[in-house]
Amino acid sequence: MMKLSRFLNSNRNALGKATDVPRHPCKWFPRCLASLNTMSCYATKTEKFADRVFAPYSVFKGKAALSVEPVLPTFSKFGSGNLKVDRRGSMMLTFLPAIGERKYDHEKRQKFALSATEVGSLLSMGPKDSCEFFHDPSMLSSNAGQVRKNLSIKPHSDGSGYFISLSVANNILKTAERFTVPVTTAEFTVLKTACSFALPHIMGWDRLTTPVPGTLASKLSKVDPQMPDLEWDK
Amino acid sequence: MMKLSRFLNSNRNALGKATDVPRHPCKWFPRCLASLNTMSCYATKTEKFADRVFAPYSVFKGKAALSVEPVLPTFSKFGSGNLKVDRRGSMMLTFLPAIGERKYDHEKRQKFALSATEVGSLLSMGPKDSCEFFHDPSMLSSNAGQVRKNLSIKPHSDGSGYFISLSVANNILKTAERFTVPVTTAEFTVLKTACSFALPHIMGWDRLTTPVPGTLASKLSKVDPQMPDLEWDK
Amino acid sequence: MMKLSRFLNSNRNALGKATDVPRHPCKWFPRCLASLNTMSCYATKTEKFADRVFAPYSVFKGKAALSVEPVLPTFSKFGSGNLKVDRRGSMMLTFLPAIGERKYDHEKRQKFALSATEVGSLLSMGPKDSCEFFHDPSMLSSNAGQVRKNLSIKPHSDGSGYFISLSVANNILKTAERFTVPVTTAEFTVLKTACSFALPHIMGWDRLTTPVPGTLASKLSKVDPQMPDLEWDK
Amino acid sequence: MMKLSRFLNSNRNALGKATDVPRHPCKWFPRCLASLNTMSCYATKTEKFADRVFAPYSVFKGKAALSVEPVLPTFSKFGSGNLKVDRRGSMMLTFLPAIGERKYDHEKRQKFALSATEVGSLLSMGPKDSCEFFHDPSMLSSNAGQVRKNLSIKPHSDGSGYFISLSVANNILKTAERFTVPVTTAEFTVLKTACSFALPHIMGWDRLTTPVPGTLASKLSKVDPQMPDLEWDK
Repeated sequence: MMKLSRFLNSNRNALGKATDVPRHPCKWFPRCLASLNTMSCYATKTEKFADRVFAPYSVFKGKAALSVEPVLPTFSKFGSGNLKVDRRGSMMLTFLPAIGERKYDHEKRQKFALSATEVGSLLSMGPKDSCEFFHDPSMLSSNAGQVRKNLSIKPHSDGSGYFISLSVANNILKTAERFTVPVTTAEFTVLKTACSFALPHIMGWDRLTTPVPGTLASKLSKVDPQMPDLEWDK
Repeated sequence: MMKLSRFLNSNRNALGKATDVPRHPCKWFPRCLASLNTMSCYATKTEKFADRVFAPYSVFKGKAALSVEPVLPTFSKFGSGNLKVDRRGSMMLTFLPAIGERKYDHEKRQKFALSATEVGSLLSMGPKDSCEFFHDPSMLSSNAGQVRKNLSIKPHSDGSGYFISLSVANNILKTAERFTVPVTTAEFTVLKTACSFALPHIMGWDRLTTPVPGTLASKLSKVDPQMPDLEWDK
Repeated sequence: MMKLSRFLNSNRNALGKATDVPRHPCKWFPRCLASLNTMSCYATKTEKFADRVFAPYSVFKGKAALSVEPVLPTFSKFGSGNLKVDRRGSMMLTFLPAIGERKYDHEKRQKFALSATEVGSLLSMGPKDSCEFFHDPSMLSSNAGQVRKNLSIKPHSDGSGYFISLSVANNILKTAERFTVPVTTAEFTVLKTACSFALPHIMGWDRLTTPVPGTLASKLSKVDPQMPDLEWDK
Repeated sequence: MMKLSRFLNSNRNALGKATDVPRHPCKWFPRCLASLNTMSCYATKTEKFADRVFAPYSVFKGKAALSVEPVLPTFSKFGSGNLKVDRRGSMMLTFLPAIGERKYDHEKRQKFALSATEVGSLLSMGPKDSCEFFHDPSMLSSNAGQVRKNLSIKPHSDGSGYFISLSVANNILKTAERFTVPVTTAEFTVLKTACSFALPHIMGWDRLTTPVPGTLASKLSKVDPQMPDLEWDK
């Protein structure tokens, strides 16, 4: 099985290699990359001359493409120059339907943002495990329940990978869409390894721990002497 | 089991998602976040204009909330500009009792600081393992034994996660408190992944290895030629 | 088995230790290191005074040597100061045939660049798994199929490591070469651990997440407030 | 077993906690810390005003103490501002014999430097595995075989940890020493996690991949367009 899956994977890699070799892109690549990054372009509307780096990990398959990239948390100031996480980061999954051989329709893309805990579910999956998440963009608002998104990850019967599916039911637009992207064990291992790297960053813990001189880390070291008492302090 | 646990987890995520979506906070969130960071606010009393970053990973459950964040080590100078770890870092666990739906009492919070080795115990836990730690804040002082803290991590019978419990017995105040927070496999995986990331930082090893130009790392490279002989040197 | 393999490994280490102790190099070491880095020297032709760092992980065995090092992605600017990955990074494997005891012929070296997904295959290998990759440098050009490269990783029958083999069939030069390097479990674990570290970097994700002040990361945090809506935005 | 070992571990932690709580050090701590860092102090003789950071992970047990810390590689320049690894880094193990309760004799310390591949052996160990390494400081010199060092790691019969032993036979001084330090599963997990973090750094790969603006990483991105052809280039 393993061996077979690897052959399938490597053969797939040999054919065009669109999956991970942008230097041999599908002939619509610039357009579809742009599409993948519309989210980011959108964001840049809010600031001038911002540097954004677009480095999605993309899996192009027959019926749809899946692109994954981390979104960093935002911080807000409070007190005497302190920062707290304002909005958690996430792993943003973008699905595009295929509309021809290696052609994907960015107008019909759908997104799903995995929270830190949902990333934890993905990281803890074994070869036979499934997981499923439900999001409601209007949760806690008057439109609650009008749009429902459901992401599921289900193993291939032969253990050679997973099916990653997104369903979006929109009662306002009266639309229902479904995307399914089969990912190999190799592709899923890239996702797990990259998500494991990204998790502390989307949690904002890299800010706590990377000792860039003159920033919090070096300053923290000055204040920590108080720390241990605080385990006991009320 | 796995599959079931994931459904439970994702459903739980769907309900309010207070666990990991601060942008849909519980309605007492600002107050309870403040409470979680009193430790840090305390510390800032000792320095002016310090940048502190607050990015706890918080799990809000029915009877209590658990918040986890790394505390960096402190360094002191000695010799000709050398630094040594003055106080090890730790993973600080903060428990808050619930006093209503998604309302937590920060006045009654209790803290428990995991050492590097205790983090190692947590990292090595399999789905059926338990671990337990005992701390005495007054250890080696005349009050030894007056306050005793006991943290235990026990697996759910169905393997779907763990119960994390803190007991605090204070013979001086004549109080005894107990907090129990059930965590899912997904939440525990976040804790393990984040603790694995944080461990070298609370040990101070990021200072040894991150080559910030002009600091120790680049200087180390000048002195290391002596090093190998030193394996044999007395 | 495990124990035996470790003895074999440690004994092998004890003999000259060329594998991982450059300070006791084979007597042709400077020349063979130069050879390993010709790729890089080539590159430096295109820029003056570039800093390049050469830190390959090299395994010197009886019939061939294998050297592995990451190659970082390239970025190109677009829009208002945005960056996108222009060419993915890779793990570059370089094989050199032995032409005498601890002497390797850098004129006859062959290279094989593992993509992110191929690195994922390597990372997901268990002690009994194999994997195989096929590359065609002329793919999609008129010379397609003229040069074919085949990298295979096969486990030792006793589970004590793997054979890493590269075959290169060149129909233009009418040449066929094959290199086989046996690697111990310890050496393969170094490769896996180092590839796991390198993967986010060859994907360009370190650029997304390392918060170097004043660069994208800190700017991203300004624009992210728009982000979450975008999960739902069309 | 697991559970038992954890109790033993946590109880051990509760008693003085010298292992990982320097803020409750053994009463000889400053002296024994100094001893652990003589290697480093030695090195500083060769440069003025160097910043060194001392952050060993130390395990203090009844008959001996073991202290572990990474040693970074050294680089030398060549060509037009290029750097190559001059001497690989290592994980330095320092053993000190006990000469009383929590008192350790730094005069009698012995060191053993694990290479990257030896770290790979340690990282790949399962709960029942052993490994053993042999070093000869005088290897390839006229004194070859005069001093022999043997490091062994053997599992506890109950799977609750490992015995780490160093034997040093010195035919010149006519001495033979042996140190054995029992480490718990928790302590070994700290070693594995910290070694896994340190491995890319002792290999020098952090220099290749950390994109400090204006250094190699950003420059590399300019030259990499040549790269892929080089997979095929002779």
